[in-house]
Amino acid sequence: MKPGIPKGTRDFSSTEVAKRNYIFNTIKHSFENFGFQPIETPSFENSSTLMGKYGEEGDRLIFKILNSGDYLKKVDENLLADKDSQKVTSKISEKALRYDLTVPFARYVVQHQNEITFPFKRYQIQPVWRADRPQKGRFREFYQCDADVVGSTSLWQEVEFVQLYDTVFSKLGLKGTTIKINNRKILSGIAEVIGASDKLIDFTVALDKLDKIGKDGVVKEMLEKGISAEAIEKVDPLFNFSGSNQDKLASLEAMLQGSEEGLQGVADLRTVVNNVESLGLDSASLELDVTLARGLNYYTGAIYEVAAPEGVKMGSIGGGGRYDDLTGIFGLKDVSGVGISFGLDRIYLVMEELGLFEAVELPKPKVLFLNFEESESLDKVKAIKTLRQNNIKSEMYPDVASSNNQQKKQWKYATNREIEFVVTTVENGTLVVKNMSTGEQTTCSLDELINKVQ
Amino acid sequence: MKPGIPKGTRDFSSTEVAKRNYIFNTIKHSFENFGFQPIETPSFENSSTLMGKYGEEGDRLIFKILNSGDYLKKVDENLLADKDSQKVTSKISEKALRYDLTVPFARYVVQHQNEITFPFKRYQIQPVWRADRPQKGRFREFYQCDADVVGSTSLWQEVEFVQLYDTVFSKLGLKGTTIKINNRKILSGIAEVIGASDKLIDFTVALDKLDKIGKDGVVKEMLEKGISAEAIEKVDPLFNFSGSNQDKLASLEAMLQGSEEGLQGVADLRTVVNNVESLGLDSASLELDVTLARGLNYYTGAIYEVAAPEGVKMGSIGGGGRYDDLTGIFGLKDVSGVGISFGLDRIYLVMEELGLFEAVELPKPKVLFLNFEESESLDKVKAIKTLRQNNIKSEMYPDVASSNNQQKKQWKYATNREIEFVVTTVENGTLVVKNMSTGEQTTCSLDELINKVQ
Repeated sequence: MKPGIPKGTRDFSSTEVAKRNYIFNTIKHSFENFGFQPIETPSFENSSTLMGKYGEEGDRLIFKILNSGDYLKKVDENLLADKDSQKVTSKISEKALRYDLTVPFARYVVQHQNEITFPFKRYQIQPVWRADRPQKGRFREFYQCDADVVGSTSLWQEVEFVQLYDTVFSKLGLKGTTIKINNRKILSGIAEVIGASDKLIDFTVALDKLDKIGKDGVVKEMLEKGISAEAIEKVDPLFNFSGSNQDKLASLEAMLQGSEEGLQGVADLRTVVNNVESLGLDSASLELDVTLARGLNYYTGAIYEVAAPEGVKMGSIGGGGRYDDLTGIFGLKDVSGVGISFGLDRIYLVMEELGLFEAVELPKPKVLFLNFEESESLDKVKAIKTLRQNNIKSEMYPDVASSNNQQKKQWKYATNREIEFVVTTVENGTLVVKNMSTGEQTTCSLDELINKVQ
Repeated sequence: MKPGIPKGTRDFSSTEVAKRNYIFNTIKHSFENFGFQPIETPSFENSSTLMGKYGEEGDRLIFKILNSGDYLKKVDENLLADKDSQKVTSKISEKALRYDLTVPFARYVVQHQNEITFPFKRYQIQPVWRADRPQKGRFREFYQCDADVVGSTSLWQEVEFVQLYDTVFSKLGLKGTTIKINNRKILSGIAEVIGASDKLIDFTVALDKLDKIGKDGVVKEMLEKGISAEAIEKVDPLFNFSGSNQDKLASLEAMLQGSEEGLQGVADLRTVVNNVESLGLDSASLELDVTLARGLNYYTGAIYEVAAPEGVKMGSIGGGGRYDDLTGIFGLKDVSGVGISFGLDRIYLVMEELGLFEAVELPKPKVLFLNFEESESLDKVKAIKTLRQNNIKSEMYPDVASSNNQQKKQWKYATNREIEFVVTTVENGTLVVKNMSTGEQTTCSLDELINKVQ
């Protein structure tokens, strides 16, 4: 039977690793350029650190690690006889795999608060694990790439994250992304104006369908959800919410006059929008999107989401926001955090679709030395040593060919690995080199080969 | 209560991440320079892939992942009542965390054999997990850095690994390492000569104590283990096993005349030693060590181990060898593999001890803009945008200082993060810059600052 891997997990070939590293390195470079510092946390945490932080559904999706040794020994017989899996879990498992990077980060900040200089700009690029039902584009093991700042409530930080998204996507060649922005305070203001904060989710869900079902359809759905006609009337401008970000801000300001919090949200967003406009973006556009409500119960200020360039069918390729009490769950109160995340797997798929990986250097030798004559091998390996010292990836086919068939195998190896230069013989310092893309065969010295390749 | 992490795991600060990445990147660069290709495998494998591959002790040390959902439902009541942890494990856990990179690699090769061009030179740098008792320098989560070749029996490959060790350690500045080499065939030859292959481990263990307990002590121990005086006499040269590698090879050749396999081992080692001598090493030395027997039941040809430079107390910082039937466990017979591994954590400790991290660029901004006047902030952020476009890491302190105390906090931030250049004000294109190491304060244009920093 052919061996396999658990569902929802992946092997990555060297080409895939190279492409993924290209994305990671671009993100990392920009993170550091913007003053963010890397940290790393363990793959598994104490269960008590993770459980209860992601809701009931989240708790279920956390991978638990079985205790080592005779883990059943101390478990109560009756509990086992009941076969209550949930109750037994806490008796036989003390550790669990990381579910995201935010909760471990909050734990890190509290644990190391005396070593950290605040505001603390950290980034973290590590895998997370979720026992989700695997499906296209959703995996049980995947990387998150997060940048967060804790210990600052400055709106400049919110401006900076827009710049950071723009910088990374521009560097990746992913032009024409839309950075959507909203503010939780505006959503709270709308809730105040429509007179029911518990209806806010119904409201935004309905409003989000405007493109598809039109104003009449949206109003009908809102009425069905118990939002009054009078309340809907008050936020009527939202049904015709187009124009520039400035137009939208003016419209929101007029609409939210009754809500202090809502007006603060408008002021905050205006600061961010104005400063981003003054600074300019390289290839992204910033769009105020009042339907944006990701993780509503979590974010308290700015909310971000990034849409792929138009024409590419893909959900959001990034998102984030501000949470005013990030570390409170671990006992450190009133530390505000704001951060964004890059969706590696989706960015990968979009870049593949748009053919943006062509510039990526694949991890293969530039020069292959064939190995037909044992007597030449040492000279070849000496030449390879020099090539490598000049940072030219190179290798000799390790086994000497003792038959025609074996020689063919070596040529096939060169073709399969798409190697550019193949050296057939080395004699008295003269190399016979075949350029595999042109088919041209030349003789040259090692120095000449180095120049040719560089 | 202060939050913590599971025993045997670690948080890494940004300084530690930077130093670790310096080692990883040096290793990676050399791996690719030598023609090795990266692959990555999932953090967890099907238990059937891992169990039974590392012996009974290994099986116990593998971290098992609890099945999701109502995992007890289908487990037999009697089995639970028996509380036989080991038997229950296979019913409630299907997946397990990677224990090393070799078995997943073997699984990968067999699973993807039709996509792979052989010989396949792969490298893999990923964490592994072991439920070992944590102690100084031994962790439950740690990285392995492996390079292996499968599908070639060439001794050139064994030469290349010596070169690879030498290159990596030289590049890291870790000069004076000793690359110890042996060959399983020589050990088999010794077993043949002493007339008992089942005594080989006793024999090498005793011989390894030569430095400490002298010849008489070693002979005494061997006799106690049931090795005959006559047999010991036959391998007498091993008790005086010094001199050059060539001397040792000559001595072994004389001693192993009675064993065909032993003589083959001498011939193999001689080829490797001669070629390494012809090629030269940058900073390491190669030493034939006949007591080297790591993973005796595993390796079938070359055996490697690297010792840190003299004077540094540390176990081996790398090791490896050839295993003739790497993929047989997954049904693909007769594929030889040879590979080496770098011990990241020990290399890190040695480099720290020798002060070799001084050249590592820490992930911190080069330039910090203080934020004392809201009216200057936009100009500062514009300047920062230009600095970043010039690849100069920079940032503005995000919150504006509205008191003397808050200004002091910003200066303290600059000091704590060891920032080189601090910009206090920006007015009409003129920057006031303080060089934090000299204390010198100057006014200059942005272009002049860029030149200064670069």
